[in-house]
Amino acid sequence: MKIAVMGYGTIGSGVVEVLEVNKDLIAERAGEPVEVKYILDLRDFPGDPYEKCIVHDYQTIVNDPEIGIVVEAMGGVEPAYTFVKAMLLAGKQVTTSNKNLVAEKGAELIAIARERNLNFMFGASVGGGIPIIRPLNTCLTADEIEEITGILNGTTNYMLTRMANEGVSFEDVLKDAQAKGYAEADPTADVEGIDPCRKIAILTSLVCGKQVNYEDIYTEGITKITSEDFAYANKMKRSIKLLASSKQAGDKYACMVAPFMLAKSHPLCNVNDVFNSVFVRGNMLGDAMFYGSGAGKLPTASAVVADIVDMVKHNNINVFIDWSPEKMELVDYKENVNSFFVRTTSEKAEVEAAFGAVEYVEGVVEGEIGFVTNAMTEADFAEKVEKVQCISRIRLA
Amino acid sequence: MKIAVMGYGTIGSGVVEVLEVNKDLIAERAGEPVEVKYILDLRDFPGDPYEKCIVHDYQTIVNDPEIGIVVEAMGGVEPAYTFVKAMLLAGKQVTTSNKNLVAEKGAELIAIARERNLNFMFGASVGGGIPIIRPLNTCLTADEIEEITGILNGTTNYMLTRMANEGVSFEDVLKDAQAKGYAEADPTADVEGIDPCRKIAILTSLVCGKQVNYEDIYTEGITKITSEDFAYANKMKRSIKLLASSKQAGDKYACMVAPFMLAKSHPLCNVNDVFNSVFVRGNMLGDAMFYGSGAGKLPTASAVVADIVDMVKHNNINVFIDWSPEKMELVDYKENVNSFFVRTTSEKAEVEAAFGAVEYVEGVVEGEIGFVTNAMTEADFAEKVEKVQCISRIRLA
Repeated sequence: MKIAVMGYGTIGSGVVEVLEVNKDLIAERAGEPVEVKYILDLRDFPGDPYEKCIVHDYQTIVNDPEIGIVVEAMGGVEPAYTFVKAMLLAGKQVTTSNKNLVAEKGAELIAIARERNLNFMFGASVGGGIPIIRPLNTCLTADEIEEITGILNGTTNYMLTRMANEGVSFEDVLKDAQAKGYAEADPTADVEGIDPCRKIAILTSLVCGKQVNYEDIYTEGITKITSEDFAYANKMKRSIKLLASSKQAGDKYACMVAPFMLAKSHPLCNVNDVFNSVFVRGNMLGDAMFYGSGAGKLPTASAVVADIVDMVKHNNINVFIDWSPEKMELVDYKENVNSFFVRTTSEKAEVEAAFGAVEYVEGVVEGEIGFVTNAMTEADFAEKVEKVQCISRIRLA
Repeated sequence: MKIAVMGYGTIGSGVVEVLEVNKDLIAERAGEPVEVKYILDLRDFPGDPYEKCIVHDYQTIVNDPEIGIVVEAMGGVEPAYTFVKAMLLAGKQVTTSNKNLVAEKGAELIAIARERNLNFMFGASVGGGIPIIRPLNTCLTADEIEEITGILNGTTNYMLTRMANEGVSFEDVLKDAQAKGYAEADPTADVEGIDPCRKIAILTSLVCGKQVNYEDIYTEGITKITSEDFAYANKMKRSIKLLASSKQAGDKYACMVAPFMLAKSHPLCNVNDVFNSVFVRGNMLGDAMFYGSGAGKLPTASAVVADIVDMVKHNNINVFIDWSPEKMELVDYKENVNSFFVRTTSEKAEVEAAFGAVEYVEGVVEGEIGFVTNAMTEADFAEKVEKVQCISRIRLA
């Protein structure tokens, strides 16, 4: 099997490395050797062992009938979408690690592949190396999935872990994450929750079999979390994590990306540093969890290569993925139900006038108190919190 | 697709229940409805909604060309082996939840299925509902698996969790586990580690692609663990878990089933009650973990039904499972390397004369001391421990 890799950055070069290091066992498991014939990139790579494979025009790949599988590791929706579509239309199977492309164009590309008895796979687009996409497709097929909740962004989980353990401020830990290469120069996609929002949209689409538009998902990042919030969390024996969550609610799903305070008993409470984890509740299976390196060159590349092996084994056989272009309607965010932790400078009487009975957390920061509300809708909370002086609030899980 | 279920006990009736409750979504995912035509059991079930499906002779199923898939949920090697082999030879696909059958006859039944373009699947034989067998086959295919270690027995994990939290004795917690239905009247297979031994043999066979004989795996149960051991574990901030472990060692694997004292940072340290978990380390993927209900009617049945869905989708297509009958040689148990925690009535001078520098744990039980050795081979340890008065010893992980 001859393949092409589009994009010779971190993931693309990782794919080439995994194929090289584990060449023999991959050939055995795939049933035939897998050879990189082209690498598409704008740059040249003089001196690179794969220098001769570099091409600059994607049509070279489209027009070569020897190429059976194409890896897309460029990132972004365009030109990735144009290139991937052209590859599928030319009869080539495609695997991608690109969450933006999958969240936006997944249903369409899956349909194109199916019509042609090809495969469009995206095992590395969520959770890096954690096997979650294929298990959802092939292992949890006997279950109605009632909930899928994940820590899906390694950068913010690293930042929150350091803030929790060392009391570092958001600004300082962001600088450190950038210095370590975990966060981009422009960290918006991570710290504002845009990245996990795309990922939970993909997971929810797979769970419900319909198109979940990421624009419909209420998304809140971690930029407002302070070391005082962590002081409260410690006192409450909770951790603060950025969760991306989908819960079945009748015919709809209630989806949300936001920081949550997790009880010690929550299965995701101890997922620290750059690790990711996905919690799934099935109506028959009960609770299950998948855990691993959510990002990083080789773990992500390992998931891409697992797709390659699967596609070699399913040459000319479409592996059914239940994700139609029909739109899945989400529960209006204002109807989502949560408990809230609130920090306030108001008196207890004012708090209780607004919220009724609450649970107080005192003696953490001078001049303020914290309290935990009962479960209520977002709309209800928004109305009630207007009646007190609110310093900050975090949902509970 | 018409199917037969052999054995109408806990798992078999669970399979029928899952197929009933999730009928519509299973039909959608499988691509066609799945209908139970026969249930093989020695008993009759008057009044049961499936009463008319009950048959007593497996030849009825063998000889019915309408039956495409057979579920084996009888347990034990015989007559399950005879029945399953007859089904495969008659052109029917088979899924089983029976770890004894798979550990003993897996390689042969996989080969028979492959020759006939059928499938023999066993997703529920290890880890109950946790998706681990199929991910090993289809998701971790880009990796050399360097380690696979699991908490694979829910009964003993429940018992150890209660002993840790409540200081209950082994005898009392065993009685409680039997009263709750977690442990059998004869608890030998669980408490002596026989059950997790079969399971790690299966997982290791899948990881190395060869036959691992469970008789070759050194196996130690939890019957000697006392509340004093837990007192030491608490002081050392460790938990005691029954681990089934395989580590790559050159061309061989070092396998062992035994209680271990786990550091808080160990990914399996917080797996409590009847939950199971499997930790995997790949040479590219790094660390990953799978967690869920390791036993129970519906979680196990969910995994069986996921196999059924996969087999409907792969009718007449063999899904390759890399497990040949060729024997995999294991590292001689005496060469396995571990650190040990030892309780002794000997003086420190004697301890140090035998082991050199050690780390002491004192003040837990009067009249004795505990110490932790450096890493050494089992043979080396066995020789050295002869030189001190040893009350008990547990390996560290």
